[in-house]
Amino acid sequence: MSERVLVNQLKHLPAGAVSVSGWVETVRDQKKVQFVILRDETGAVQLVNPATRELAEDADDAARAALALTETISAMSTGTFLTVTGELKHDERVKLGGVEIKIGALEIAAASDPETPIAADSGLDKRMDWRFIDLRQARNNLIFRVQTTLEHAMRTYWIERDYIEIHSPKLMSSPAESRAELFSLEYFGDQTAYLAQSPQHFKQMAQAAGFGKVFEIADAFRADPSFTSRHATEFTSIDAEISWVDSHEDVARMQEELLQTAIQAVKDKHGAEIEELFGLEVTVPALPFPRIPLAEAREIVASRGYEIPRADGDLDPEGERQLSAYVKETYDHDFVFVTDYHPEIRPFYHMRDPETGMTKSYDLLYRGTEITTGAQREHRVEVLEAQATEKGLDVAGLEHYLDFFRYGVPPHGGFGMGLARLLMLLLGESSIREVTFLFRGPTRLAP
Amino acid sequence: MSERVLVNQLKHLPAGAVSVSGWVETVRDQKKVQFVILRDETGAVQLVNPATRELAEDADDAARAALALTETISAMSTGTFLTVTGELKHDERVKLGGVEIKIGALEIAAASDPETPIAADSGLDKRMDWRFIDLRQARNNLIFRVQTTLEHAMRTYWIERDYIEIHSPKLMSSPAESRAELFSLEYFGDQTAYLAQSPQHFKQMAQAAGFGKVFEIADAFRADPSFTSRHATEFTSIDAEISWVDSHEDVARMQEELLQTAIQAVKDKHGAEIEELFGLEVTVPALPFPRIPLAEAREIVASRGYEIPRADGDLDPEGERQLSAYVKETYDHDFVFVTDYHPEIRPFYHMRDPETGMTKSYDLLYRGTEITTGAQREHRVEVLEAQATEKGLDVAGLEHYLDFFRYGVPPHGGFGMGLARLLMLLLGESSIREVTFLFRGPTRLAP
Repeated sequence: MSERVLVNQLKHLPAGAVSVSGWVETVRDQKKVQFVILRDETGAVQLVNPATRELAEDADDAARAALALTETISAMSTGTFLTVTGELKHDERVKLGGVEIKIGALEIAAASDPETPIAADSGLDKRMDWRFIDLRQARNNLIFRVQTTLEHAMRTYWIERDYIEIHSPKLMSSPAESRAELFSLEYFGDQTAYLAQSPQHFKQMAQAAGFGKVFEIADAFRADPSFTSRHATEFTSIDAEISWVDSHEDVARMQEELLQTAIQAVKDKHGAEIEELFGLEVTVPALPFPRIPLAEAREIVASRGYEIPRADGDLDPEGERQLSAYVKETYDHDFVFVTDYHPEIRPFYHMRDPETGMTKSYDLLYRGTEITTGAQREHRVEVLEAQATEKGLDVAGLEHYLDFFRYGVPPHGGFGMGLARLLMLLLGESSIREVTFLFRGPTRLAP
Repeated sequence: MSERVLVNQLKHLPAGAVSVSGWVETVRDQKKVQFVILRDETGAVQLVNPATRELAEDADDAARAALALTETISAMSTGTFLTVTGELKHDERVKLGGVEIKIGALEIAAASDPETPIAADSGLDKRMDWRFIDLRQARNNLIFRVQTTLEHAMRTYWIERDYIEIHSPKLMSSPAESRAELFSLEYFGDQTAYLAQSPQHFKQMAQAAGFGKVFEIADAFRADPSFTSRHATEFTSIDAEISWVDSHEDVARMQEELLQTAIQAVKDKHGAEIEELFGLEVTVPALPFPRIPLAEAREIVASRGYEIPRADGDLDPEGERQLSAYVKETYDHDFVFVTDYHPEIRPFYHMRDPETGMTKSYDLLYRGTEITTGAQREHRVEVLEAQATEKGLDVAGLEHYLDFFRYGVPPHGGFGMGLARLLMLLLGESSIREVTFLFRGPTRLAP
């Protein structure tokens, strides 16, 4: 492996010989001196070369080499990947990190076509066409470093508490609830497979298997023709499920602690960079997060002058924004658990509270957008069957699922959370497309 | 959340009141005393209850309750999940952990059907039909704890070295190399999507994006009609890709260090339990792993009296076993990198060594089975196009992929490794089905 130095380490090194590798961000080709901004995955550094524009008649080999180097630099296009060996110099006047490298030797690994198809200010769709170039921007690179830290902190939280990581299958023989919004495919001739839209069934199966506490961060698929800033046909779902809960409150308490831990880790590792590149301070949420029953949430929204235009009693996106604004003003908090949903607007497998008639479930809103549904699950098979029938579901089609509850199962609950929504809201981005490595939507399957 | 104590913590607690939750593994219903083995995700404990079989005429409430408890226990079927509150007693004579709990109160969370469809010695296919019951076995539970530790150690290794975790899309618009063995599906009417059989293209894209070093542990799909112990139609793929490599050797060095670190973590955390339940000692591999060029490997196999019945110069499964046996005898090592594969038996994107004409790639064998292919990738687009054409591939169909190399890209390489194969070989299991949460094969889509 080349002995390359990462750009963010240069400031810690003494002046002298050094080797860096990265790509050309800009070339300033002045008559007497050439400047190249080279970027790698950690930052950007200025390279400098005194230009040799012509040769004297008695030019020696060194002069010829200098001319060749100058011409190479003049011809270099943005995006070219190269390795430069040279002399590191510390100089306070250099705005970019206070260091610069005088180019000694330069080796091009792969030149870029001179016509770069996008610019930093190209439209989102155009940028997605050329996502691999778009991702070279420092702020895009940072998004995926933040993602890495966020996920690792969550997994570490769980593993320190003896959770088991599962990899549930994405190919299923029967649809989870209804066939709506499910991709299907032909499976070895005469079978039909469906792509899982959530690991719901399988993380519940892990409870019947006596796994106790499980998590999974994996792909989920939804054949949803939506074009909103919050929907994708393929997304990363963060899921956990735990045994022996008394109610959804046990799930909510785990989730709020998990989020606090993960956001703290992001702040610790990337807080300064996020402030620089996104212009915002990472806010670590205080515990406990506020809880507001749905009926009260609707009253709050109404009292702010917004009438929710839906009959089913749920919030709509604007209602969620209004509620979050209220929570921010009242509690100075970015998160809010909305609780006490009526069974009519919840899936059949949510447990119901016999006293209130409401489901033992919650939605979690973050800065005005729903990022999670959590619940205690109904684990009594006869109640589960009755609730499925009440919803008009075909109980026969749910046999594999219902079997999980026939041979003993502990009371349990869990949540699912969209990684991209969480990242989008944490970084103040306007669309999950900006924080997805390669977005997939109804009209977007490439690159 | 219930104040339950995990079974493996009981031995550390003083005698006295305690509450445990789990499922019934066995009931020994003797005339004068009842014994229940209760298991949770951490172990098993003996519960004891002095039986009350009939009531005196002047029986008081306590006696009636005692009779009811006895009858409840008599009626309990294996698999029933329950919570027991009682008195913990330390007693060396109790073989199961030296503790026992005298049952005070017993609350059934969900009773099991008395007819359990499988037993511990049922055939593999039958056990897979009822995987959630099969997974209750202590050794199966341990498999997924080992998996959790193995993966977390790998991710931690990478994250400590500033790798970025990516989630590449599984829905692709164009097949990677050929359409063979790819699942396809109708995508919003007039489009066709393919399920990725590897994140190969996208982790290479991350190199062109300047991400430097990336990893991903995620699902991959292969429409492979094989029924061997090593193949599945859906599997968890462990992938990494790094920039600025000089050759595949840089990749191999990272991978051997990664594996040593991860297996050490498994030994530290689960070594004793693995010895108890699998009867084997976890062996942490020494560095460096042996390297043997393919031509030499074939000679070694031939000298052991096995003639490989294939014309293309590659090893076959028996050849791999023979080579691993040789490596074990000669170097006392469980792993071996086989190197110097001819381009004819490698994909078009493997870089070739101009001196030897061989690809800069390796296979990694572990205890006789291939678990990985690794390589430096060809990053010069004109060479890549020529190699694709030479393989008879349709270059036009590869445009999205080839585009990644037109706008600058660093030299790079990586590997893909099957999680289930690694686990199977580490634990001495005979099939990946034993170490997969829910196996998927040509005739297996459920549960």
